[in-house]
Amino acid sequence: MIEDKNQQRTPLSTLGEFALIEHLTKNFEISHSSTVKGIGDDAAVLDFDDKNIVVTTDLLVENVHFDLSYMPLKHLGYKAVVVNLSDVYAMNAEATQITVSIAVSNRFPLEAVEELYAGIETAAKIYNIDVVGGDTTSSTTGLLISVTAIGQVVKGDEVYRSTAKPGDLLVVTGDLGAAYMGLQVLEREKEVYKVNPNSQPDLEAYTYIIERQLKPEARKDVAKLLKDLGVKPTAMVDVSDGLSSEILHICKSSKVGCDLYEEKIPLDPTVITVCEEFDIDSATVALNGGEDYELLFTISQDDFTKIKANPHLSIIGHMKDENEGVHLVTRSNTRIPLIAQGWKNFD
Amino acid sequence: MIEDKNQQRTPLSTLGEFALIEHLTKNFEISHSSTVKGIGDDAAVLDFDDKNIVVTTDLLVENVHFDLSYMPLKHLGYKAVVVNLSDVYAMNAEATQITVSIAVSNRFPLEAVEELYAGIETAAKIYNIDVVGGDTTSSTTGLLISVTAIGQVVKGDEVYRSTAKPGDLLVVTGDLGAAYMGLQVLEREKEVYKVNPNSQPDLEAYTYIIERQLKPEARKDVAKLLKDLGVKPTAMVDVSDGLSSEILHICKSSKVGCDLYEEKIPLDPTVITVCEEFDIDSATVALNGGEDYELLFTISQDDFTKIKANPHLSIIGHMKDENEGVHLVTRSNTRIPLIAQGWKNFD
Repeated sequence: MIEDKNQQRTPLSTLGEFALIEHLTKNFEISHSSTVKGIGDDAAVLDFDDKNIVVTTDLLVENVHFDLSYMPLKHLGYKAVVVNLSDVYAMNAEATQITVSIAVSNRFPLEAVEELYAGIETAAKIYNIDVVGGDTTSSTTGLLISVTAIGQVVKGDEVYRSTAKPGDLLVVTGDLGAAYMGLQVLEREKEVYKVNPNSQPDLEAYTYIIERQLKPEARKDVAKLLKDLGVKPTAMVDVSDGLSSEILHICKSSKVGCDLYEEKIPLDPTVITVCEEFDIDSATVALNGGEDYELLFTISQDDFTKIKANPHLSIIGHMKDENEGVHLVTRSNTRIPLIAQGWKNFD
Repeated sequence: MIEDKNQQRTPLSTLGEFALIEHLTKNFEISHSSTVKGIGDDAAVLDFDDKNIVVTTDLLVENVHFDLSYMPLKHLGYKAVVVNLSDVYAMNAEATQITVSIAVSNRFPLEAVEELYAGIETAAKIYNIDVVGGDTTSSTTGLLISVTAIGQVVKGDEVYRSTAKPGDLLVVTGDLGAAYMGLQVLEREKEVYKVNPNSQPDLEAYTYIIERQLKPEARKDVAKLLKDLGVKPTAMVDVSDGLSSEILHICKSSKVGCDLYEEKIPLDPTVITVCEEFDIDSATVALNGGEDYELLFTISQDDFTKIKANPHLSIIGHMKDENEGVHLVTRSNTRIPLIAQGWKNFD
């Protein structure tokens, strides 16, 4: 498993809050003209002129959303940013700024927090966003990260989840279920490690699915892709809680029904193989696994020809009248009502 | 001490995340035209046209920032909002929206979380802000609240902490030290309660200072007050970490020095009395206590006559050249270098 090989341990108490924030964020650069003032005052000041602004926030809690025994802190910082950007992209907006707050217990030395911020910085660079504020505080137990992401969108270009229409096609980017199966592999290796700490697992066959779990990417590219294709989604969400749950969100908000075709759900070959290895149904994994951070959207049937050949996009179903319900149409052509099983954190 | 007399206990697991958010926020009204879309999508959508936007975020952690043995959950919700709004007002901006994320362990029933949100709702109404987003998640131990506040300001009207000039007057609103002494009284009563749970403390003499601790208010009124007086601060911060720490923030950011006059520091009579009771120096409390959420600002000497008679404002010092340093001038006319002692959470 992944060990902390960093021998240097500087107690956080040697810095204090202000010095810590200053230390962690001193290399963060500002690249957006909308960032008038970033870190260093009571608040950040942003200037968006005639754009609409989108705001979203997510909280990641140790041992609820992540397990540091296999999640390197740098990856965690990266993922904490990405999951928020994904929500901004799901509004058809451009992500521009984030604030990052962390609560961290004294069992983490400064070097650990630096690792976390290195991941945040990497994500900020790759996705071209400015880190404009935040808060660091101590926690009595674990680690907690709260990110708020801000984005901009030309007025009227924003896409809600509530505006799908019966007859619209249901489309998803990329493939589904890999992050969940990556987690299963990591959990299995953790158990092996407990029994035999000297085991050297060969995880090469699982690279893709482990990376989907530990270092997910948000679909920043999709807004441009769709613009280039001349398609504006009628409704959109990101797939964070599993396909079932997200389809039900669109259907509930838009007051429509849906037929989802099992055979159309995009699966990576690794996911199929590993599902066989774990004796899990791959469609179930895609439906309920979550953390894929792909975009799920609906488009008018008139736009079918514009997207049908695109390798990044899969048409997986179509929207119906609300009273027709929300169903999975299986490979054997059975229609089963779709239920959400994505989120069980309070169990 | 304050007991939970609520007998009804609904486990959070009976709802799940989406139903919980929906339940908690269903009464929240939208009152700002800048709120295009609030809770219920991947992100909120805001429209500020030609204003600058300010963004600030704070994290409150159980047993670090608050103690539920004397902090009622409703007050906590209220305070979590207020401390963020205070940062927005310190930018000379109007607070308009917030997002609220909570991590909560299963030891809290639904009714407790409802109490917390009732406080959030009350603050939102009193300060006229829209709650536009958030996240609820489980935590492995205590309660944690992350609030992000958004505000607007006419471009150019924002006031930073970095723009004070030598010769400017240093001004503070209200009075200082009461929240800290309120905390001392509450801590003392907690100890008494541990020894004798049946004691009925008479806290009437401490009403003001306890309220300053448990239900602080942010100075929403000051922006208008100063506008009416025809005064624009040259620099401003809110007093969250103690007067010393905040003066040093202004001095460091603005590259100026300061003389602060001990005799000018505004103290409520209750603070003076209770400091005597606890045998603590009241100036020390005002300097290092924190959580006052008053505004500290500098103004040009030309504006002296406009504010000198105002009962809400105290002139407590003046700014100097950076190389003259930052000093407290005591009642006995001794000059002592000012040091920050406000924040010790990582000790």
